Amino acid sequence: MLKVVKIGGNIVDNPEKLDSFLKDFAAMKGHKILIHGGGKVATTISKALGIETQMINGRRVTDEETLKVVTMVYAGVINKNIVNKLNAAGCPAVGICGADARFITSQRRSPEPIDYGFVGDPVKINTRFSETLMNEGYTIVVAPITTNGKETLLNTNADTVAQAVAVAHAQTEETSLIYCFEKKGVLRDMEDEDSVITEITQESFKTLKTEGVVDGGMLPKLENAFKALDEGVSQVVICEAGSILEDGFGGTVITK
Amino acid sequence: MLKVVKIGGNIVDNPEKLDSFLKDFAAMKGHKILIHGGGKVATTISKALGIETQMINGRRVTDEETLKVVTMVYAGVINKNIVNKLNAAGCPAVGICGADARFITSQRRSPEPIDYGFVGDPVKINTRFSETLMNEGYTIVVAPITTNGKETLLNTNADTVAQAVAVAHAQTEETSLIYCFEKKGVLRDMEDEDSVITEITQESFKTLKTEGVVDGGMLPKLENAFKALDEGVSQVVICEAGSILEDGFGGTVITK
Repeated sequence: MLKVVKIGGNIVDNPEKLDSFLKDFAAMKGHKILIHGGGKVATTISKALGIETQMINGRRVTDEETLKVVTMVYAGVINKNIVNKLNAAGCPAVGICGADARFITSQRRSPEPIDYGFVGDPVKINTRFSETLMNEGYTIVVAPITTNGKETLLNTNADTVAQAVAVAHAQTEETSLIYCFEKKGVLRDMEDEDSVITEITQESFKTLKTEGVVDGGMLPKLENAFKALDEGVSQVVICEAGSILEDGFGGTVITK
Repeated sequence: MLKVVKIGGNIVDNPEKLDSFLKDFAAMKGHKILIHGGGKVATTISKALGIETQMINGRRVTDEETLKVVTMVYAGVINKNIVNKLNAAGCPAVGICGADARFITSQRRSPEPIDYGFVGDPVKINTRFSETLMNEGYTIVVAPITTNGKETLLNTNADTVAQAVAVAHAQTEETSLIYCFEKKGVLRDMEDEDSVITEITQESFKTLKTEGVVDGGMLPKLENAFKALDEGVSQVVICEAGSILEDGFGGTVITK
């Protein structure tokens, strides 16, 4: 059983939360891959370098200078610090981005109707590479920078990377996809942190939608989760970073 | 035969020279490892971020903020762009730093008499990791950031990294160590670029020293080369980046 775990910027930005998460992650048994997002460091550095952050519809445009900054920050300082800490915690780890061994080849997004710049979506995963490392006992830590298969690096959404990596491995190995985010899971009542829905199936998802329990930003997350299940992933989990060692990850488990 | 090739900042800083070198390097036959230095980008970024560069005896002090910058620049943007270009040139490549798989564990330099900060010298190389990747057909590209074996990253001289990596592999495989620098090789006459001494042995080195042909910055370079030979490396080459595909690398070959 392979676990593909994604942590977001809110954990990467918080040294205490990150350290605590990495200790738990190091203790997880079996094959595992960690995908990390970026956090605020890239924005801070861009500002300091005088690179203007251009946003369209709430999404960052990755121009050439911004691509350099995210490559430095994601694949450089964040990735290597995570790797170093995992190794120190007894989890042999190797940090890569999608360009290494062409682990993740992406298709650059069409500049029409909106040009987001050097941004791409995964189309091919080199599972032979990851399996080689995992069979040698290494855990892979992946920064969300990918390659167009030629000479261009592409900034890529970390959730999408996690999903593509999980789906690719699910073709040959039972695979769970675990999204760690800032809440305990999918909540029945947004005001009540303890109202976690522990399990969602395709059936119960319909009801949750009809009842209006799930809406807004959670809808596309869950729709993507079901897409991953359709494509072979065994279960998708949405939980807090602090609970990955708990039964059912202390969060919401989504299954067919 | 393994070739450990080191390129310095002067090539990293020059996009045309770098591209041309990478095409040649991609075409080199057999097992190979590329070690790259830093170049001026780290200094530019440090300045922009308002990090003061402190120099003692002409050497940079690596404080905590500078360590972050060199990790970003060396292990991030420089490393990943080199890897992406090598893959595009048909040379399957994986970029790492010394923290990945604890490839290079270093000893932090004593803060006495001078405290250079987060700087270390290699003491242990994980050749099992590099051999696994090379046996799978991958070329490793190494950024000169290493680990203290605990949670701390250390800035490390790229020449020293190359030497340590070559010596470690020489214990089990015939290994050449190739330093690419800005001149064609060791010159008999510094004013004459074509006065390359094509071969230096321990015997001829003594003569060259006596005659005063070799002095200054070249002395420690050659002394380190002979140390590498004593420790098992088959030959050390000092040449231009543009001539690595030539016979004898178009430079100076140093042998016992």
